[in-house]
Amino acid sequence: DLNFISTVGDNQHRLIETLKQAWQRSDIIITTGGLGPTQDDITREAIAEFLNEELTIDNNLVQKFEELFRYYKIEMPPSNIKQAMVIPSAKIIQNPQGTAPGWWVERDNRIIITMPGPPREMQRMWTKEILPRLKQKVTSAVIVSKTLKIFGLTEAEVDERAGPFLSATNPTLATYAKIDGIYLRITAKTNTESKAKELIAKREAEIRALFNDYIWGVDSDSLESIVGSLLTAKKLSLATMEAYTGGFLANVITNVPGSSNYFRGGLVAYSDTARTAFGFDPQVISRYGTVSAEAAEAMATITREKLGTSIGVGLTGVMGPKEIEDKAVGTIFVGLNDGQYRQSFARNYPGNRLQVKQRAVTSALFELRRILL
Amino acid sequence: DLNFISTVGDNQHRLIETLKQAWQRSDIIITTGGLGPTQDDITREAIAEFLNEELTIDNNLVQKFEELFRYYKIEMPPSNIKQAMVIPSAKIIQNPQGTAPGWWVERDNRIIITMPGPPREMQRMWTKEILPRLKQKVTSAVIVSKTLKIFGLTEAEVDERAGPFLSATNPTLATYAKIDGIYLRITAKTNTESKAKELIAKREAEIRALFNDYIWGVDSDSLESIVGSLLTAKKLSLATMEAYTGGFLANVITNVPGSSNYFRGGLVAYSDTARTAFGFDPQVISRYGTVSAEAAEAMATITREKLGTSIGVGLTGVMGPKEIEDKAVGTIFVGLNDGQYRQSFARNYPGNRLQVKQRAVTSALFELRRILL
Repeated sequence: DLNFISTVGDNQHRLIETLKQAWQRSDIIITTGGLGPTQDDITREAIAEFLNEELTIDNNLVQKFEELFRYYKIEMPPSNIKQAMVIPSAKIIQNPQGTAPGWWVERDNRIIITMPGPPREMQRMWTKEILPRLKQKVTSAVIVSKTLKIFGLTEAEVDERAGPFLSATNPTLATYAKIDGIYLRITAKTNTESKAKELIAKREAEIRALFNDYIWGVDSDSLESIVGSLLTAKKLSLATMEAYTGGFLANVITNVPGSSNYFRGGLVAYSDTARTAFGFDPQVISRYGTVSAEAAEAMATITREKLGTSIGVGLTGVMGPKEIEDKAVGTIFVGLNDGQYRQSFARNYPGNRLQVKQRAVTSALFELRRILL
Repeated sequence: DLNFISTVGDNQHRLIETLKQAWQRSDIIITTGGLGPTQDDITREAIAEFLNEELTIDNNLVQKFEELFRYYKIEMPPSNIKQAMVIPSAKIIQNPQGTAPGWWVERDNRIIITMPGPPREMQRMWTKEILPRLKQKVTSAVIVSKTLKIFGLTEAEVDERAGPFLSATNPTLATYAKIDGIYLRITAKTNTESKAKELIAKREAEIRALFNDYIWGVDSDSLESIVGSLLTAKKLSLATMEAYTGGFLANVITNVPGSSNYFRGGLVAYSDTARTAFGFDPQVISRYGTVSAEAAEAMATITREKLGTSIGVGLTGVMGPKEIEDKAVGTIFVGLNDGQYRQSFARNYPGNRLQVKQRAVTSALFELRRILL
């Protein structure tokens, strides 16, 4: 259980005071940052003083640093020696992403773990070095989580449907409103990983029965990666045409590595000039406007034909700050054309410009996923 | 000076323990979150118990809540009464964004401020209510910051140029590597705001002399808003054509409210099919490839002519994970055509797909700003 997080400035006295409190109330203390070579990096010094142990130079580390600097043909700054200092209780944790090694200190039934601050260095050390050791050490309790991602329902609706599961204790269930929908996180705490996963699987099945098609993915899934996998599996190609989302849909689709296998290209029709140049029927605009189901469908058709793809997606809507053609900010239309049928969807989202843009794109990807299932 | 930040779970015992420590070491304690109507919102209760004061219902608040719920035609849940509880030392801080009011508690020469957790509610309360009161209260020291934004130099280069200013104490200078460049933050601490601003202005002038054109903006400026202002001021119009950035440039440009005044539209040429359909000269591709200065220039010209704009921008590069046409991941080409001259720029950035995409777009906007100055 995570009970306390403290953030302390680069001040040795305050750092030691914080360590003292942590030592009294916790079995495991994890520090991040303050392991650099400069004067204001004082985590090592604070821990040494707090535990009343002496810092000495680890010659193996010095040798490794020297090799590293030789390899990069840079002279090692003398200040770097600081990073090779260790106390007797500390075991060194390798940091292949940088020069600051971590520490694993065990004393008096407590563990102090120090990790470097830069996210890239810290993340690797946590995943590859710390977590596996902690798992071996802490065998009394295992916490496992799984997140189900929902789109198309409000947080209140998700809350209501999930009802009694939200007050259950093991597994617990929590809702999070995210920009791409509502996340439901199931967390089980028990003595083995397999038992935790069993508890989660059972609850997941119950929740899936409640939400069915509204659940579009789990954990690190993104809608664009799921759409990409479906297009790849079905050997289909895709093109987009966007009005006021200004290329955001194409951008999100191409964030997926390998998207060139199915995504052919896109048109951003941000003005009448562009709409005319792209062959948009002026009749459609004058009759229905550019923010309409008809315009979204027409755009899906135009881009599908122009780029010769299996599927065309059209996306239009009012991003704000002002309404367009008497349509309110947050009004969205998605058009789809897969050669067999044309569909369109209207949605209405609250929020500022960037939020509406994000929700419009999420909406388009969600509808695209539906027709690909 | 901010000395400590603590994060505590929804546990009254631990919250009180944390308040006790904070009380011993700080003049001002600010809490956020835990003011909701549900059982696990316990900040009010913890402060009352810690200060040994009694919580009683504030009838003015109850009346206000009732009015609010009547206005929205919702019945007030009985649990909401919790949010109308106050202790004698607390003054109520208005929260027009939600129902949870903040508290301003003064006792024994210390101040406890509670703010609601939701960012929208907290930010407003902090800016409009808390900060002005704190400024009146704390007259001994004023801290003012200004951030200068730099693009086109590495963090090490910025560090080296800024040299001695980085070790100066008032104003202090700190560098931050951000996705759109390097930020230099000048911070002055003195007894009046005008004196702090004077100190900053002097240091800013010295730094501007060192970095000149590499500084593209300050504080909340974004490159896309600066480019937008320049285009508006000069009554120029813009169109984009992108290869592997997949519409990200057009998307960023259209994040600016009012961008429809100068942005006409964009083409996303993510495949040979699209390049052909958009009229890309096959000769250029076969001779120079799609990732080349020539391709970037050709794209700038195509979109400028197709959409009849003053300026066309072409953007191509290798986003990864694999190299394209023997060009390494991170290679970027920006093409510009304003009718008078055609220019192109090559850059090379490290990073993953999303980072390279972001840097390519930043690079294109930076060059666009240069020709507009």
